[in-house]
Amino acid sequence: MKSYHINMGAGLEGLVMREQEVPVPGSREVLVRVRACSLNARELLILLLGYYPLPVRPDVIPVSDGAGEVVAIGEGVKSVKVGDRVAGVVFPRWIDGRFQAEVADQLGGSLDGMLTEYALLSEDGVVPIPDHLSFEEAASLPCAALTAWNALTGGMGLQVGDSVLTLGSGGVSLFALQLAKIAGARVIATTSSAEKAERLKALGADHVINYRTTPDWHLAVRELTGGRGVDHVVEVGGPGTIVKSISATRIAGEIAVIGSVARDNTDDRGIHRSVFMGTATLRGISLGSRAQFLAMNRAIAANGMRPVIDRVFPFAEAKAAYQYYSEVQPFGKVIISLS
Amino acid sequence: MKSYHINMGAGLEGLVMREQEVPVPGSREVLVRVRACSLNARELLILLLGYYPLPVRPDVIPVSDGAGEVVAIGEGVKSVKVGDRVAGVVFPRWIDGRFQAEVADQLGGSLDGMLTEYALLSEDGVVPIPDHLSFEEAASLPCAALTAWNALTGGMGLQVGDSVLTLGSGGVSLFALQLAKIAGARVIATTSSAEKAERLKALGADHVINYRTTPDWHLAVRELTGGRGVDHVVEVGGPGTIVKSISATRIAGEIAVIGSVARDNTDDRGIHRSVFMGTATLRGISLGSRAQFLAMNRAIAANGMRPVIDRVFPFAEAKAAYQYYSEVQPFGKVIISLS
Amino acid sequence: MKSYHINMGAGLEGLVMREQEVPVPGSREVLVRVRACSLNARELLILLLGYYPLPVRPDVIPVSDGAGEVVAIGEGVKSVKVGDRVAGVVFPRWIDGRFQAEVADQLGGSLDGMLTEYALLSEDGVVPIPDHLSFEEAASLPCAALTAWNALTGGMGLQVGDSVLTLGSGGVSLFALQLAKIAGARVIATTSSAEKAERLKALGADHVINYRTTPDWHLAVRELTGGRGVDHVVEVGGPGTIVKSISATRIAGEIAVIGSVARDNTDDRGIHRSVFMGTATLRGISLGSRAQFLAMNRAIAANGMRPVIDRVFPFAEAKAAYQYYSEVQPFGKVIISLS
Amino acid sequence: MKSYHINMGAGLEGLVMREQEVPVPGSREVLVRVRACSLNARELLILLLGYYPLPVRPDVIPVSDGAGEVVAIGEGVKSVKVGDRVAGVVFPRWIDGRFQAEVADQLGGSLDGMLTEYALLSEDGVVPIPDHLSFEEAASLPCAALTAWNALTGGMGLQVGDSVLTLGSGGVSLFALQLAKIAGARVIATTSSAEKAERLKALGADHVINYRTTPDWHLAVRELTGGRGVDHVVEVGGPGTIVKSISATRIAGEIAVIGSVARDNTDDRGIHRSVFMGTATLRGISLGSRAQFLAMNRAIAANGMRPVIDRVFPFAEAKAAYQYYSEVQPFGKVIISLS
Repeated sequence: MKSYHINMGAGLEGLVMREQEVPVPGSREVLVRVRACSLNARELLILLLGYYPLPVRPDVIPVSDGAGEVVAIGEGVKSVKVGDRVAGVVFPRWIDGRFQAEVADQLGGSLDGMLTEYALLSEDGVVPIPDHLSFEEAASLPCAALTAWNALTGGMGLQVGDSVLTLGSGGVSLFALQLAKIAGARVIATTSSAEKAERLKALGADHVINYRTTPDWHLAVRELTGGRGVDHVVEVGGPGTIVKSISATRIAGEIAVIGSVARDNTDDRGIHRSVFMGTATLRGISLGSRAQFLAMNRAIAANGMRPVIDRVFPFAEAKAAYQYYSEVQPFGKVIISLS
Repeated sequence: MKSYHINMGAGLEGLVMREQEVPVPGSREVLVRVRACSLNARELLILLLGYYPLPVRPDVIPVSDGAGEVVAIGEGVKSVKVGDRVAGVVFPRWIDGRFQAEVADQLGGSLDGMLTEYALLSEDGVVPIPDHLSFEEAASLPCAALTAWNALTGGMGLQVGDSVLTLGSGGVSLFALQLAKIAGARVIATTSSAEKAERLKALGADHVINYRTTPDWHLAVRELTGGRGVDHVVEVGGPGTIVKSISATRIAGEIAVIGSVARDNTDDRGIHRSVFMGTATLRGISLGSRAQFLAMNRAIAANGMRPVIDRVFPFAEAKAAYQYYSEVQPFGKVIISLS
Repeated sequence: MKSYHINMGAGLEGLVMREQEVPVPGSREVLVRVRACSLNARELLILLLGYYPLPVRPDVIPVSDGAGEVVAIGEGVKSVKVGDRVAGVVFPRWIDGRFQAEVADQLGGSLDGMLTEYALLSEDGVVPIPDHLSFEEAASLPCAALTAWNALTGGMGLQVGDSVLTLGSGGVSLFALQLAKIAGARVIATTSSAEKAERLKALGADHVINYRTTPDWHLAVRELTGGRGVDHVVEVGGPGTIVKSISATRIAGEIAVIGSVARDNTDDRGIHRSVFMGTATLRGISLGSRAQFLAMNRAIAANGMRPVIDRVFPFAEAKAAYQYYSEVQPFGKVIISLS
Repeated sequence: MKSYHINMGAGLEGLVMREQEVPVPGSREVLVRVRACSLNARELLILLLGYYPLPVRPDVIPVSDGAGEVVAIGEGVKSVKVGDRVAGVVFPRWIDGRFQAEVADQLGGSLDGMLTEYALLSEDGVVPIPDHLSFEEAASLPCAALTAWNALTGGMGLQVGDSVLTLGSGGVSLFALQLAKIAGARVIATTSSAEKAERLKALGADHVINYRTTPDWHLAVRELTGGRGVDHVVEVGGPGTIVKSISATRIAGEIAVIGSVARDNTDDRGIHRSVFMGTATLRGISLGSRAQFLAMNRAIAANGMRPVIDRVFPFAEAKAAYQYYSEVQPFGKVIISLS
């Protein structure tokens, strides 16, 4: 079988394909014929920037997100069978409940990832994917959709009728918009162009604010909510937007703080005061548990939701996929297909 | 102004209309020009059966549910103003949090109700109604919709993608179906006729089971959920259905136990065993708080949901409305209009 | 190594000891030198009554509860090391979150149990035990203490100052009393004798009611709580006490429904009505998750709590331990020691 | 009756006593003979600094915290009676649930406060006080203890066995320490002197860290928790300590962010990154609801907890009390007695 391998900070040239033996699943393991992968910011951080907050094994198979078909199962496997369509679970040991240091092993980090023809995963390391999704669509879920799901449901659970603020049109933000809409929420999205505004509206956004033409977008959010502020913010903007995001939130509302592993902190002054004055809750999150992945897939299936895909590259052109993903701001996920 | 008055167990003849002075709102009170009322089982219990678990004042103005327009406000009122469209809050002192004996005062019970041209309510005793609803539609919310809302969201909060079982087509069940659908849930409903099944599907039910032709409907529910059982049951069937409802629920799922103030308990054997064996949760509920009413109205507004109305009677024919409501099984709410 | 083996319903004579090879831990497995076991009602049901709601493997090593020392670890084991003092987790796959059919494998049921010199367990199937506890004390925790912990903290979490009702002096009830006291709760306990009343008070019970001399003990509970009722009931009495237990509970309070796998349901009439009228919550529970076990152990360690032990039997006299446990009503746990 | 009056920023000289008529309670109001008040930072901010985030009425009776005896009740009052020992509720309209703009009226701010012989309060504006507390002790609860209670129980509810970090020996911190201990938690406290360390240990602190001699106290906290970090921080240090506090917290733990209405934000850089990297939750809080006050009082009563009082001044010397409170760092509450 063919697999890509990388090392931390190796750069695009460091993404090398090698041939190796198809592994045989041991006790409670499953072998998955990978059919599609998707890229997230983490892949660029690891390969290009050489910085990642969790350990990355030398010569690891990269890419956390992938979906495929179970082709073999080991002894004792009960919950899946050969032929099942599954996605990999990025933190395969994070079964349920809250995140803990003990479950930090990660696909495409301390564990081999999905940019390979065959992936050997633990039984708990896969979840069934919704029937109506293609492998490409399902491969887009493990990081970005699950992060959005956790942001919306993991703390003060989103309730139908709540209002949600999303920022921009990155992967997490698009999923947050779509998931919030199937949950009956009102969504206010920010963006930088009229064209993206149209696409966000087409995905269901009730209001879109252009943060270029409305730099005080937090005030616009308050206005759109009758002065009250939104119930939830899916905050992906980092130090540069966090204080405004808190200002856009209702008293005792929640701001899910996602990524931006930015090493620069110079811009986040005022957070303390904003949290206290707004009696707001900031909740740092990182992906979600296997149980959350299962629940999200039920939600996606029940509502026929389809992920947005920007572009699909073949397995042989994984390098081009990385390059494209690093150079443009895609609207939707960038997929590497193995089918 | 004209008001109806009743006494516990007085029968239809005991529903008498009298003329009286329009009251003047005192400190933190509001005067509402009532435009529509709706009937619930409680009205029949009080007037016809002469039994109700909470106190009913002699000569009280009956009917818990009503909506109208604020026409005067007393000193210190801040949250509403003249002209606001509002509904009455059935437990006006139940502001937020859980129910307690201290907040058991009830419209149309220990407090004067809404079957009157003008109702004097406390400031906290009214909530704004969604703009897109007529007064007739809004008048249908205070008991039945709020009970359904509490059933779905007050315990193990309903999550998008969850499955919900509703029983029959009474007021609470129809609202539970509609609210669950706007929240992105899958709904399985039971009914007794093909005609009602069609109407339930038109309201969004994903599956309808005829409990006449499928007496083991709980097994059918399990089948429809892949053997797992539903996440939530809105249980209005009483001792006669509760054990089957528990059987239709997933492990660690929740059954909201509503009404049936039935005095007969002969049929509920087996509940204890079912709860234990299914590690299920039974949660007895009775309406909801003011805060829940506000949240529900936001959900209804955000999703343009419209209550189902079976028939509207004029104020002068309130007796006919009671009679109709006691004799048929309406599909939707029975309304008394004062507009 | 020596192990006992049983078959469902085999009776005391069916408890046979055999010699076998000490197993070698495979990937992510640990080998535990068992030092003590404890008995629970489940052991009597399985061996003597021949009835148990979960599967029991033929010739299984019985007994769900045990503690000992890790003597070997398999490949990939990170969270424990040789020499660690641990207890077995009865549902080793129930890591966190709520119970599910997928995690129903159980020690001393579908999996080999702890009545053996060496137990082969999965890495997640053991938890560290508090330093201040002997192996005998630690062996008393896995079923009874964890059930009490789940009863108190798994639903409407116990808060300091809450009131708790415990029934009798079985294993779960004694643990519920002790755990509630270290959490700063007020405890009302029922019992059948003055002598046991003294022992319950010595363990911290604020009030003890003799249900023989006060058959309307639920009214006594209400009186002791100023008419309000208790916040939590740890309900082990089954169909015979459940309705009174609900009556002893405050509005919107919680009754954790435990065991009694009694097959007789004749006595539980009135539950439906009680739940509805009291807007009470019944929550069926069965043990708890690994995460709850860890949290409970932290609580026991932080407060120096010590389990109550009734009597200790040596490994060779396991039959006598079963017999004693089936004939007396022990006050505290019955232990089988292998040290 | 005699009452003090103030204006925002008037300085100590602006605290003037006047004689006025004893008011008569109207509908659902109660008249309280105030027996003791206590001072909080808010009083200094309002009187001396002239800055407060909520409105302060001109010529208002100052001081949010007080306790006394009900001497008269108005029409319709049911939950209290003449002779009841009560404390005032600082946000009398915040009944239950979360804080909202609508309930921001505050004693000693937009409403008259407690530095008066007789206070006219709404029925919901008083709560019964524990029997074992003097009026001086009870007067210390409304702001500081309730804030500590909300910090510990209002978000991720404190569980027996959890670990709690408190900072220094201000009012909120001492209450947090005491409340956490009666709830069975482990408490790590920081302080600046060996003498205070002794007093904190006497109150139950399991560990005390001198932040002068151990400037990296956050690392010491991690060490004391086996590398894991504490479950809860009651964070009163403001921008100067918040980043270290987050570092001292376990993954997915909670930091309650209290006061410091400091207008200077220069020091809080790095919060965003810390929240994300630690997947921590920051929850801004401000006091608590009436329902929380009732629950806290039950906890204090059940465990015989006694507030720490630093010094008591007579009513006539209120100015001296303010001055003392502004100049020293009291260990415990500063009380003004009217008995």
